[in-house]
Amino acid sequence: MSEPADIIAALRNCNRLLISVHKNPDGDALGSQLALMLALEKSNKTVVAQNIDPVPEIYRFLPASSRIKTGSTVEGRYDAILVLDADPPRTGLFDGNYPADTRINIDHHITNPAEWPLTWLAPSASATGEMVYELIQRLGIPMDREIALCLYTAIFTDTGSFRYSNTTPKSMRIAADLIEAGADPWLVTENVYESFAYRRIKLLGNVLAGVERTEDGRIAWVVVTEELFRRFGASSEDTENFINFVRSTKGVEVAILFRQTAALQYKISLRSKGRVDLSGLAQSLGGGGHKNAAGSTVDGTLDEVKERVIGAVNNAVEAQLGSASLDGRRS
Amino acid sequence: MSEPADIIAALRNCNRLLISVHKNPDGDALGSQLALMLALEKSNKTVVAQNIDPVPEIYRFLPASSRIKTGSTVEGRYDAILVLDADPPRTGLFDGNYPADTRINIDHHITNPAEWPLTWLAPSASATGEMVYELIQRLGIPMDREIALCLYTAIFTDTGSFRYSNTTPKSMRIAADLIEAGADPWLVTENVYESFAYRRIKLLGNVLAGVERTEDGRIAWVVVTEELFRRFGASSEDTENFINFVRSTKGVEVAILFRQTAALQYKISLRSKGRVDLSGLAQSLGGGGHKNAAGSTVDGTLDEVKERVIGAVNNAVEAQLGSASLDGRRS
Repeated sequence: MSEPADIIAALRNCNRLLISVHKNPDGDALGSQLALMLALEKSNKTVVAQNIDPVPEIYRFLPASSRIKTGSTVEGRYDAILVLDADPPRTGLFDGNYPADTRINIDHHITNPAEWPLTWLAPSASATGEMVYELIQRLGIPMDREIALCLYTAIFTDTGSFRYSNTTPKSMRIAADLIEAGADPWLVTENVYESFAYRRIKLLGNVLAGVERTEDGRIAWVVVTEELFRRFGASSEDTENFINFVRSTKGVEVAILFRQTAALQYKISLRSKGRVDLSGLAQSLGGGGHKNAAGSTVDGTLDEVKERVIGAVNNAVEAQLGSASLDGRRS
Repeated sequence: MSEPADIIAALRNCNRLLISVHKNPDGDALGSQLALMLALEKSNKTVVAQNIDPVPEIYRFLPASSRIKTGSTVEGRYDAILVLDADPPRTGLFDGNYPADTRINIDHHITNPAEWPLTWLAPSASATGEMVYELIQRLGIPMDREIALCLYTAIFTDTGSFRYSNTTPKSMRIAADLIEAGADPWLVTENVYESFAYRRIKLLGNVLAGVERTEDGRIAWVVVTEELFRRFGASSEDTENFINFVRSTKGVEVAILFRQTAALQYKISLRSKGRVDLSGLAQSLGGGGHKNAAGSTVDGTLDEVKERVIGAVNNAVEAQLGSASLDGRRS
């Protein structure tokens, strides 16, 4: 594992750089990628940004986002590859053949195995964007409005607009600096949280109308079927955050979203309010995840999948929190 | 209009204080009220907090919130009355007979007419909580975890968790200080945004499933009927924020919520995304409001009320933004 000083030294010797982030890129990945690209270009580097997946519509307001290349084949060689916000294999690119001798990995996920010598891992950072902010400062590259907007979006989205427990005094102070440098909080909000497709609100309504929960109220779930997608011309992208509505219900410890991916297959997303650790559970369902968020894909009819998953979640809840006190159930 | 220095001087001479906030108190009003009560008690004042309306359930996690008295009759006399976050008549208390010679008004709403000589008005503050933070600092009262939690909640809620355009570098830096003093961002989030009644999520689903919009997509609306309230055992408190889901739809400039209050009566809420000014419109419908938020109560059948309100909103949208370009309608 490395320190930013080593990464700064390595960057000084490189002129042609490739920056990539993980599959299904989010606001932190894209904001960090674009901010670093724009900053390194200001110090006269040639920078290419490439990801396997396209930029989701809600992030296309980010400066230079149209310059991010998409596709699984990386052409040419570079002086350095930078992978941000992910363990390098999670880019879905390269297939193990990295077209550069200098490989830099910058991430705040504690699960990153830090396999590259030039890995800077800061699990205390709320977002990779916080680390990129520090890197740009230490590189002596002046902040501007475009870079500030990208970094603000990175921190804003990875803290759930400063709602989650990863929100620190440091993330707030960096955000303050970024607003001063020209980042517009409402512009980011309007694009990220106020630009949902009309089909999404109809889908959300129909999905939430079918919410169910266990007798003790500690587990609640919703189901998105292929039929619902068809009815509203919607896709999986439209279901982002649906599970958070379920989690935000009082008394709910674990929320589940069942999303149909084939006639007899469901993608499962799990969210914990923090008292139930989901990491072991996801493994037992053949998936992966962290303490508060996990997922898996399970085959079967909806009834079979629900029975299996809700049963497993219930076992985890009872093992970790004890049996339900039905008195505790509220409204 | 006054400065905090005058208010500080006045406070030094008072020992028995009453603090009140506006009807239907929100997070900023209550957080400011409780923080100032706790701080003044630390400097050995006797403080009573009283409002006309009770503390909403989501704010009962605030320290000392159970000590806020409720009711329209104020008993006894005080050395000073402090009204926070509102023009004094908006407390709904006192009926013009204020039982104290010293009257202090602290508010960030630009609409406050500042009729009391000791009025401190700071429209640039994101929240009254920001002003109370400054006041406590200038009074030399040390910050503690409980006061910090109250002030953090005040700023957090009035900026919509740092999403709205009133979010400034100063509000972010104060929030950083408050986290350092012990305010827990997730504790506030969990109580304010993650503790909705189960009936609310069912109601939300059924309401959103019925969303409609105009041909050009610039006006969208939902309806909450008495039948829906009955079906889910829900009440108007459960509909808070519903209109924001409608506003957050792409292309929507004005969102409308029709909430049935009697067989032939509907309460109308309007929200603008910022480009349509609603202040005149609310007046023409017999209600009140500001640029981005307005409301009214309209009599009639649902069809009559919808036709009248949507027609008026459409006139306002066309007058202010021009005729619709149907090309502009997205998804």
